[in-house]
Amino acid sequence: MSSSNWFTEAHEASGSSIGFRTRALLHSEQTPFQHIEIHDTTDWGRLMVIDGCVMLTGRDNFLYHEMMTHPALFTHARVKRAVIIGGGDCGTLREVLRHGEVEQVTQVDIDERVTRLSEQYFPELCESNDDPRAELRFEDGVRYMAECAADSVDLIIVDSTDPVGPAEGLFNADFYASCHKALRHGGLLVQQSESPLAHLDLIKSMRGAMRTAGFDALRTLPFPQPCYPTGWWSCTMARKGGDLSGFRERGAATKGFATRYYNADIHRAALALPEFMRQALGE
Amino acid sequence: MSSSNWFTEAHEASGSSIGFRTRALLHSEQTPFQHIEIHDTTDWGRLMVIDGCVMLTGRDNFLYHEMMTHPALFTHARVKRAVIIGGGDCGTLREVLRHGEVEQVTQVDIDERVTRLSEQYFPELCESNDDPRAELRFEDGVRYMAECAADSVDLIIVDSTDPVGPAEGLFNADFYASCHKALRHGGLLVQQSESPLAHLDLIKSMRGAMRTAGFDALRTLPFPQPCYPTGWWSCTMARKGGDLSGFRERGAATKGFATRYYNADIHRAALALPEFMRQALGE
Repeated sequence: MSSSNWFTEAHEASGSSIGFRTRALLHSEQTPFQHIEIHDTTDWGRLMVIDGCVMLTGRDNFLYHEMMTHPALFTHARVKRAVIIGGGDCGTLREVLRHGEVEQVTQVDIDERVTRLSEQYFPELCESNDDPRAELRFEDGVRYMAECAADSVDLIIVDSTDPVGPAEGLFNADFYASCHKALRHGGLLVQQSESPLAHLDLIKSMRGAMRTAGFDALRTLPFPQPCYPTGWWSCTMARKGGDLSGFRERGAATKGFATRYYNADIHRAALALPEFMRQALGE
Repeated sequence: MSSSNWFTEAHEASGSSIGFRTRALLHSEQTPFQHIEIHDTTDWGRLMVIDGCVMLTGRDNFLYHEMMTHPALFTHARVKRAVIIGGGDCGTLREVLRHGEVEQVTQVDIDERVTRLSEQYFPELCESNDDPRAELRFEDGVRYMAECAADSVDLIIVDSTDPVGPAEGLFNADFYASCHKALRHGGLLVQQSESPLAHLDLIKSMRGAMRTAGFDALRTLPFPQPCYPTGWWSCTMARKGGDLSGFRERGAATKGFATRYYNADIHRAALALPEFMRQALGE
């Protein structure tokens, strides 16, 4: 194994690493916010790396993007207005727009270069960027949510990098309080919540901050994600008013669009917590 | 990252790698069958490597061992006699023996050194080796199953390495026919069946061989497994007579022993197939 032909992310916090065999470095750039690289891999399509951390590959991003979106959209009765904080690769935006009931989606990523590079290197993720329902903004998501009109949004998806660097402000009670205020009654907040195995303390503190901010019901949904540390990831869903015990099973079973991971059975399955998580989260 | 302080397995077939930060190489040995290494890691406990492939770590083997055993034992009405082919680290044996109804378990691993090293470096996995119901044999599992009395076993668990090298003979219709013959009516075969993402063709051909051997019902259950390629793994369950549509939910919900991953909700969840698997497997 020649190290020059592999991109490897060593995840210090968990003492483990994940690597991909690469063919070429296609792009490398320091933006005002972060360092972005695009690699071509032998088996995983294109690979986007931000500040040394794998963001996505062409082969497995469907797992993350489908699980960050469809469980929430089939839980809420009818999402009209959605906001995505982060998500500059536009894969989450594309999945939200598959839902015909959605009238407007605002994507707020601080770094326009992520989106421009995704348009160039991951065009399949950007195929809905021109949808008239989509609005792409490039600004600070924390400020955007703080200034967002009260009771104006049905769904907020926090599709961010890890809670260090530019995304640090997206994992605390102040930010969640802004989200809570912006949501209508019954509205949902979904946040990527790292690895069930490596970041259980983070998941617990995130959930604590969400409760502090006023959210009534919480669910953490695990899913496989080979390119992230431990290969196992999660999103956490929080609801303003109402509970999170069920979802629109019939809607999910008869959805009029294709998915590769998500289906009604998988949605139900993602609501099951492994025994160690059940105990740690007190559910 | 100093490469001398990491053990990294580059998985050629999927063009990806997984590594663990190590403190020390505790043991290295060429047995008549394979090369075995034991490393001490910074965050994953002990690490066993066979022929360059990660077999298990102290931190995440509970996922694999629980999913190779409890779904089958809570599917069968009452397993009296079980056989484990492979499984030399004894973690699968320990989990099977948690079930009070089990009267006898025979573990058949070709390489005694795996068990002796596990006793030394993973004593927690071997804590049931002295159970009077356990029989440890060190011989060829293919021959053992070929010579096994007909209609004598309720559960066969194939806890093997990848289908190359010593384990190659454990992934074909001849072997499955021996298993089928040895099983009583309603008996179950469970085999580790690699990564849903990286080895879907293997899973399909394995399932085809199981059907050829006479098995009536099949289920492939995915589960997270950070230390194996793609961090996502599966087992495939096959039944001689009867179906695999349900399990003893009440038994699973009131089991009298501790688990860290498995519970009744997780069992139900593991029966859900991702959309791409559902389509590929025709279920």
